[in-house]
Amino acid sequence: MKAAVLHEYDEHLVNDAWLRCEEVEDPRIERPTDVIVRVGGAGVCRTDLHVIEGIWRGKADVALPHILGHENAGWVEATGSAVEHVKVGDPVICHPLVTGGHCLACRRGNDMHAAESRFPGINANGGYAEYMLTGERSLIKLPKSLAPKDVAPYTDAGLTAYHAARKAAHHLLPGQYAVVIGAGGLGHIGIQVLHALCAAEIIVIDRTEQALHLAADCGAQHLVMGDEHVVDRVLELTGGHGAEAVLDFVGEGDSVANGLAMTRNAGFYYVVGYGGRLEVPTIDLITSEKTIVGNLVGTYPELMELMALADSGRVRLATREYSLADANLALKDLHHGRVVGRAVLLP
Amino acid sequence: MKAAVLHEYDEHLVNDAWLRCEEVEDPRIERPTDVIVRVGGAGVCRTDLHVIEGIWRGKADVALPHILGHENAGWVEATGSAVEHVKVGDPVICHPLVTGGHCLACRRGNDMHAAESRFPGINANGGYAEYMLTGERSLIKLPKSLAPKDVAPYTDAGLTAYHAARKAAHHLLPGQYAVVIGAGGLGHIGIQVLHALCAAEIIVIDRTEQALHLAADCGAQHLVMGDEHVVDRVLELTGGHGAEAVLDFVGEGDSVANGLAMTRNAGFYYVVGYGGRLEVPTIDLITSEKTIVGNLVGTYPELMELMALADSGRVRLATREYSLADANLALKDLHHGRVVGRAVLLP
Amino acid sequence: MKAAVLHEYDEHLVNDAWLRCEEVEDPRIERPTDVIVRVGGAGVCRTDLHVIEGIWRGKADVALPHILGHENAGWVEATGSAVEHVKVGDPVICHPLVTGGHCLACRRGNDMHAAESRFPGINANGGYAEYMLTGERSLIKLPKSLAPKDVAPYTDAGLTAYHAARKAAHHLLPGQYAVVIGAGGLGHIGIQVLHALCAAEIIVIDRTEQALHLAADCGAQHLVMGDEHVVDRVLELTGGHGAEAVLDFVGEGDSVANGLAMTRNAGFYYVVGYGGRLEVPTIDLITSEKTIVGNLVGTYPELMELMALADSGRVRLATREYSLADANLALKDLHHGRVVGRAVLLP
Amino acid sequence: MKAAVLHEYDEHLVNDAWLRCEEVEDPRIERPTDVIVRVGGAGVCRTDLHVIEGIWRGKADVALPHILGHENAGWVEATGSAVEHVKVGDPVICHPLVTGGHCLACRRGNDMHAAESRFPGINANGGYAEYMLTGERSLIKLPKSLAPKDVAPYTDAGLTAYHAARKAAHHLLPGQYAVVIGAGGLGHIGIQVLHALCAAEIIVIDRTEQALHLAADCGAQHLVMGDEHVVDRVLELTGGHGAEAVLDFVGEGDSVANGLAMTRNAGFYYVVGYGGRLEVPTIDLITSEKTIVGNLVGTYPELMELMALADSGRVRLATREYSLADANLALKDLHHGRVVGRAVLLP
Repeated sequence: MKAAVLHEYDEHLVNDAWLRCEEVEDPRIERPTDVIVRVGGAGVCRTDLHVIEGIWRGKADVALPHILGHENAGWVEATGSAVEHVKVGDPVICHPLVTGGHCLACRRGNDMHAAESRFPGINANGGYAEYMLTGERSLIKLPKSLAPKDVAPYTDAGLTAYHAARKAAHHLLPGQYAVVIGAGGLGHIGIQVLHALCAAEIIVIDRTEQALHLAADCGAQHLVMGDEHVVDRVLELTGGHGAEAVLDFVGEGDSVANGLAMTRNAGFYYVVGYGGRLEVPTIDLITSEKTIVGNLVGTYPELMELMALADSGRVRLATREYSLADANLALKDLHHGRVVGRAVLLP
Repeated sequence: MKAAVLHEYDEHLVNDAWLRCEEVEDPRIERPTDVIVRVGGAGVCRTDLHVIEGIWRGKADVALPHILGHENAGWVEATGSAVEHVKVGDPVICHPLVTGGHCLACRRGNDMHAAESRFPGINANGGYAEYMLTGERSLIKLPKSLAPKDVAPYTDAGLTAYHAARKAAHHLLPGQYAVVIGAGGLGHIGIQVLHALCAAEIIVIDRTEQALHLAADCGAQHLVMGDEHVVDRVLELTGGHGAEAVLDFVGEGDSVANGLAMTRNAGFYYVVGYGGRLEVPTIDLITSEKTIVGNLVGTYPELMELMALADSGRVRLATREYSLADANLALKDLHHGRVVGRAVLLP
Repeated sequence: MKAAVLHEYDEHLVNDAWLRCEEVEDPRIERPTDVIVRVGGAGVCRTDLHVIEGIWRGKADVALPHILGHENAGWVEATGSAVEHVKVGDPVICHPLVTGGHCLACRRGNDMHAAESRFPGINANGGYAEYMLTGERSLIKLPKSLAPKDVAPYTDAGLTAYHAARKAAHHLLPGQYAVVIGAGGLGHIGIQVLHALCAAEIIVIDRTEQALHLAADCGAQHLVMGDEHVVDRVLELTGGHGAEAVLDFVGEGDSVANGLAMTRNAGFYYVVGYGGRLEVPTIDLITSEKTIVGNLVGTYPELMELMALADSGRVRLATREYSLADANLALKDLHHGRVVGRAVLLP
Repeated sequence: MKAAVLHEYDEHLVNDAWLRCEEVEDPRIERPTDVIVRVGGAGVCRTDLHVIEGIWRGKADVALPHILGHENAGWVEATGSAVEHVKVGDPVICHPLVTGGHCLACRRGNDMHAAESRFPGINANGGYAEYMLTGERSLIKLPKSLAPKDVAPYTDAGLTAYHAARKAAHHLLPGQYAVVIGAGGLGHIGIQVLHALCAAEIIVIDRTEQALHLAADCGAQHLVMGDEHVVDRVLELTGGHGAEAVLDFVGEGDSVANGLAMTRNAGFYYVVGYGGRLEVPTIDLITSEKTIVGNLVGTYPELMELMALADSGRVRLATREYSLADANLALKDLHHGRVVGRAVLLP
């Protein structure tokens, strides 16, 4: 099959082309619960850039050559002997993790903390290809109204944003404030989820006018240009107190210190983006009684919930399509902030 | 009246005597809800050392000369015109904050985040004296079985430990682990509260044998000497995963990095002690999905709950008594780790 | 002052006129925290009919002659000596309960379970008059945009609906269903609150086309005429399972049995209306693991939250104005189902 | 194999012998995830009596002849082709439900609400036999310290009691009260779980001195003989207010009305036992704001948690052993209130 393959890391993202589009072997069914999916669309994520940089080398067992792509949807192509709940031809969206379902984390519904799992696109071959290998427990059948290429980014960008925004929505009350830092691929979903699940006023910070426009379309009540005055602007909008929830989809540069500074006392700072460092004297955490929450991707039931939001039109995905052969272009565009919403590769 | 008064800061805690025991003016009723309490006992807290160091100068309006003492119990001596729920002679324990009760935080029960409040011993004169000024909303009547001098430290050391341990107990399930770092004035209460409110296995870390003995008496199942191997020891005790909750009553030195390292993925690190810095790459928060929780003192209802635990014998306070004239000695003993449990000054 | 006064009960609601509009003595400040409010509007509630029927005789200390009216807003007319947070002339909305603020329920924020309280309009004189007596702790200042007569019904109809809908919204997930039985004074607020606070599909049942129209305007996705087929219709709409939450604003007749029958296994049936009986074999509660939740009026902070929803336009109140002299007419119209939304008396 | 088989219902439980001990066909592996367990012990439950009475005919697909026994533990005897996590010879305890693991309820951890499931002993053959058929997802491996016959009743009596008591413990605060009605097979576990998971004062009601003795051993602070004065006695013990949680393990006769009457306003009445009827005017639910909670068996993770409590000695099971041939005797003893704790059949 055709695939876009990573053969070497590029620590400073300076190379011309990171992936090589080439012919590779097809994936094969190995376990009774395996499923092969014909890829209909694969989302392009900042994490792909981080994998190319080599940041994930110590965190997950990435081995080169490697096929990226952890946001996948398509059609069932082949199934293992024990697969009962999907059949060949079914349109499906793939939860990014492939888990066994027997450990205590899985039994409690927290698939992303499974004792054993694979994460195709991170520590196994992913969806920048014609076919990919996943498992029965990862699949959700799509309603006819939704095409795989249009929903693929929900599986990670969408699901991670949903997971964090849902936590925040659970404690946000009418009359309170939520700040979203970064209205990109994840952020623009996060805004819509907050809007759907709570009645807090939403303040969005971004560095481009285009992203702020998208934020307004997504339901943001207040737009703040991401310059050196962001903390003051947010304090001003919130009566001097800061916001009860800050969702940081950037997580690097001054975003971290700013995010924590614009969190109200007794409030929650949600870290979703990464690349930077959190540094804070413990006395400041004590006196403010703030909580800092790390956020991974969401659970399988959360992906079902997100698909329900998509089905009902409460959440919409802004996508931009590229052919698989243009994988490098899509990654470059993302790297240079030229993608509004989410890029998707079509094989 | 007699009081132990702070006249100047001592940044490195090197002076011979920090407080001067002297005659000062009695406090006076000023507002209709004011209450004057004849002090029966005043707890001696590490925060007092931090105030003497000057750490709190920028955080709260401490003005010198200042009477320390924010853990107070005694008897009602005089009441303002609108006071209805306590009368002269009642034995009482004082919630450390004096609040108005009208702001939204107060109406939601979160007194410690009141829009307006005083904190006697921090930004108003405290209980290292014969009398102190507080407010009706801060007082809980004591049952006959409990003497003020024996319960004074519950108001801050106890209440802060209860507040953090109760948050942890709320999510700790049988089969899970809680680590308590520091079995001192706060920690030894925290252990008992965990033991009373959940069935997690409790692992306690401290640097002295004496404190570990106290921890065992308080219900700890595992004792770990606080040396350079603590993280490994905790991982070993928890099947390599770390603990679902880590309560850090130290919050300085390597306690912070270690505390976070021994927190299990999807687990909670509670910062209670302070003086140090939290430093962590955002990617580590993301992949581990850990939550870092700042902890202030507890609410008035929580102090009621803690008194119920004390009444029923589920929580006991280890105290060591000093006369008010020996305030400097008590502080020195605390500073040099020579107090097991909590020091209390008797006027 | 002028007031509409109840002099005798009418068990079957057959009398021509229930209230007598007459001159009575003005209320007087008695306690330091008392406040007299000049009534701007008083909501007319089904509970008023129940008081007239005498249903509440055994439940609360209603004594005749009695001035009804527990949904009040207006302007501060006079204040007791200790009142600090409102001043004469302030436009205010009145939380229906007058509480002391010192008991544990109050300190935890649950005013409606206060150890001691008055409920003007139920067990003290209410707002079917020119002036009424309340307390400082019950008042919320209104923004200029909101006139007292337009918001009065939020204090009980609105707040009760908010209180129940908020509980439901807290567990309702995208892809789940909420049923609202009765789109009247409370129900039409409940629908809007659900719509604002969660993304569940909302099914509304009512017996009039007019109410179902109002429901659609309020955000209901599915409208069901309240006939003998309601249970089947709801099962059909919910894939045969029933709804995860059923909010019953009727609570009498077959509404109770139907409401429980259309609740999904592991779901919640919220009883808000009353007059009927709940009867169910315990085996059916066990096997279905349903939860039945009684609902009283909401808390003071919840009234603040509801006002935030009103301010932002997320919740709107449908009202119909009557003069105080027409109190009987308003009550008759309510009794005969001729009021869409909520009737309000203007003195 | 040998089994005790039910051939006909006995509505009034008047027959001499309900089950016939006879030779039947061995169960066979049919699905890839099937597991056959050699029974080590099978608990005898009041539900078995209810099945014999025919109460469950309309609720579950019980077909005669039927092998009772839904509380089973033993050793793995044979496994289907896809079974990976247990192997022949493993000592195991069986979660009572056999589920597929693919529906949303399973994925959220709520196995007992699975879209498809079997309940051996209720709607499939159970453990009153030498062997029984279950599934891989139902099995928890036992530590060496625990013998199957000693733990079998944890799977239903224990797990149901744990499930309800855990819900209650989650909201019970120090200073509050829990009432347990019935200190039998379920109740004596419920008391221990409450004691382990919260610090509420525990009041136990039973009709026999023996059961009250057992209750005291299990950690009850107050014992109340189950006569006509129970409601008054509980009100007296709780300052006239009633208890914040009432767990009713009887659920028939006057237990239901009494249980609700001794529940404090804003409190929770947990129905666990069954056979009776709940009847209450809706106005009483409204004014009291009580919640009535139906309780089914617990989840698989909850059975893990309960086993952790058993391993650590926090929960102990009082059992009385009978041979399989004496199944009728065991059932008669249970029916006549002659079993303290739980009867277990040994094949």
